[in-house]
Amino acid sequence: MDSLNIKDIAKLCGVGVSTVSRAINNHPDVNAETKAKIIKIIEQNNYIPNNSARNLKRNNSKTIAVLVKGITNPFFSPLIKTIEKEINQRNYSMLIHQIDSFSDEVDIAVELIKEKKLQGIIIVGGKFTHNTEKLCRINVPFVLTTSIAQNANLDSYSSISIDDYKESYKAVDYLCRLGHKKIAIITAKEDESIGKYRLNGYLNALKDHGIPINKNLIKYMHKDIDEYSLENGKICTYELLSSNEDFTAIFAISDNLAIGVCKAILDYGKSIPDDYSVLGFDGIELTSYFNPTITTIKQPVVEIGLESTKILFDLINQKCGTVHKIYDGELIVGGSCRSIL
Amino acid sequence: MDSLNIKDIAKLCGVGVSTVSRAINNHPDVNAETKAKIIKIIEQNNYIPNNSARNLKRNNSKTIAVLVKGITNPFFSPLIKTIEKEINQRNYSMLIHQIDSFSDEVDIAVELIKEKKLQGIIIVGGKFTHNTEKLCRINVPFVLTTSIAQNANLDSYSSISIDDYKESYKAVDYLCRLGHKKIAIITAKEDESIGKYRLNGYLNALKDHGIPINKNLIKYMHKDIDEYSLENGKICTYELLSSNEDFTAIFAISDNLAIGVCKAILDYGKSIPDDYSVLGFDGIELTSYFNPTITTIKQPVVEIGLESTKILFDLINQKCGTVHKIYDGELIVGGSCRSIL
Repeated sequence: MDSLNIKDIAKLCGVGVSTVSRAINNHPDVNAETKAKIIKIIEQNNYIPNNSARNLKRNNSKTIAVLVKGITNPFFSPLIKTIEKEINQRNYSMLIHQIDSFSDEVDIAVELIKEKKLQGIIIVGGKFTHNTEKLCRINVPFVLTTSIAQNANLDSYSSISIDDYKESYKAVDYLCRLGHKKIAIITAKEDESIGKYRLNGYLNALKDHGIPINKNLIKYMHKDIDEYSLENGKICTYELLSSNEDFTAIFAISDNLAIGVCKAILDYGKSIPDDYSVLGFDGIELTSYFNPTITTIKQPVVEIGLESTKILFDLINQKCGTVHKIYDGELIVGGSCRSIL
Repeated sequence: MDSLNIKDIAKLCGVGVSTVSRAINNHPDVNAETKAKIIKIIEQNNYIPNNSARNLKRNNSKTIAVLVKGITNPFFSPLIKTIEKEINQRNYSMLIHQIDSFSDEVDIAVELIKEKKLQGIIIVGGKFTHNTEKLCRINVPFVLTTSIAQNANLDSYSSISIDDYKESYKAVDYLCRLGHKKIAIITAKEDESIGKYRLNGYLNALKDHGIPINKNLIKYMHKDIDEYSLENGKICTYELLSSNEDFTAIFAISDNLAIGVCKAILDYGKSIPDDYSVLGFDGIELTSYFNPTITTIKQPVVEIGLESTKILFDLINQKCGTVHKIYDGELIVGGSCRSIL
């Protein structure tokens, strides 16, 4: 059963070996029908290309570590998939390491380098507070993805991200233009990463529209519930709805929170967007599956993944110095916000 | 900033060092209020307990690998979280390794053992087809979680799972008892894992209710779209809805697929459950957030995670021989199925 090799598979499929290889490795230039046929024949013949085992053998010399804060966050799924594909296509293998919310990703990176002889590191979803001295402890090429280091020299690291402040401002500005003046936010307290920037975007958008800040409409995620979870969004919204505060819209600083917000509103027998408008952030696939679909700021997650890997390999191959790229987010209008003008 | 140690934090919180340690490690016996206070003080003081870095140092001697097929599947998130917590509480560290759909998890396990000096392995979401000879190549204690090895001797491996056949039968039996006779299924074709068992449950439940099988209502996931994805569920349902087949209910063999099913039905301007009943499988958190909530078979995912880790450590400590545990699933009635009697 296991004795078939890639040449046999190619023969059975009536295509070349390189086509089979490209199909297995998810290259974009194999058409869907051919790919489906190859996969079918592979499965019928129990052929195991065993990429990962091969990768492991290569592993000793060529490994990229991807450190992720919040590996179960659905926003990171397509990002990690993209990065993995790109790393594998360059004949490197990827080691995923999840970082819990208490741990410091730079400390972990330094330990991992000692232990694993890494060629490079991509840090996903990290803090914004690392300084130059600290980042210099990472002595292999690395890229910060979806974060920046606000206290570090720009030549001490590379970063690929969106501008969290600007995109959050854009979101709240949109709600204001729809006529909303009483806009609640669900955000992170005393935050060292995206939360602070997204909260500032909210505050300044309101200010620029001449809307005074009502502190009772700023709701911080509960510390004793998973951050950015459905449940946290739901509980925070229950509290808003049962308070005496009046509001017409809620801006949640992540889509996962926004789904929780929607659930709470529906549980209260209210409707979206007739009673409350809801706006999320990130642009995860689920927002387009929810009923109603959720208006959100979409991060170009695939581009961010592609570019992060490209820059990392350019650094490894000494084709570039440090790079900082900021992508634009896109307002995706779903069915969860209405005009009240 | 980083010079505070755990004793300083305990002093600032007015609690003992062990309470701080338990709070940091998410022990269940710290009350939520105390924990929130400790976390707040830790954050205010930039104290970094740096668990993961400590774990890495312990790592050389004490590592458990968790091999996951489909790491971005939301069903696995709480499972992996539980396993990680349990492993860390036993002062071992966890290495996550994702297995792509083409690769063989046993081959990967064997390679990983050579390279990493593992104390044990948990394989999550693997194939059902491994035989005794193959499993014996894994020469450290291991547990199959959410799968069994149908061709292997029971004393060659341990497993913690549900009975996929029985639970799927239960799901379809429920739809039949609500009066549905034309029930579509979205399942996996030529499948070596859960798909085959869940399809058989569907076929036999219909048979026992005297309902003839209509092959046009058996819809296989597309091979060229991510397995068990929202999109696969949506596309399959578009095809069912645009065919000339008449049906009143759809059983999707995973909740992620079921959310895609719901989306397709809503896109067609039809309503759930008035026009079509929808039933999922797994019991992921999102089913209770969707509008309407989705009826599903809930796997006791936390118990499965706890027991998998417990059994693995019993094997490591030679407290037991191979163990096979089958948990019951639970039908969770949401708002997505109606009686048509």
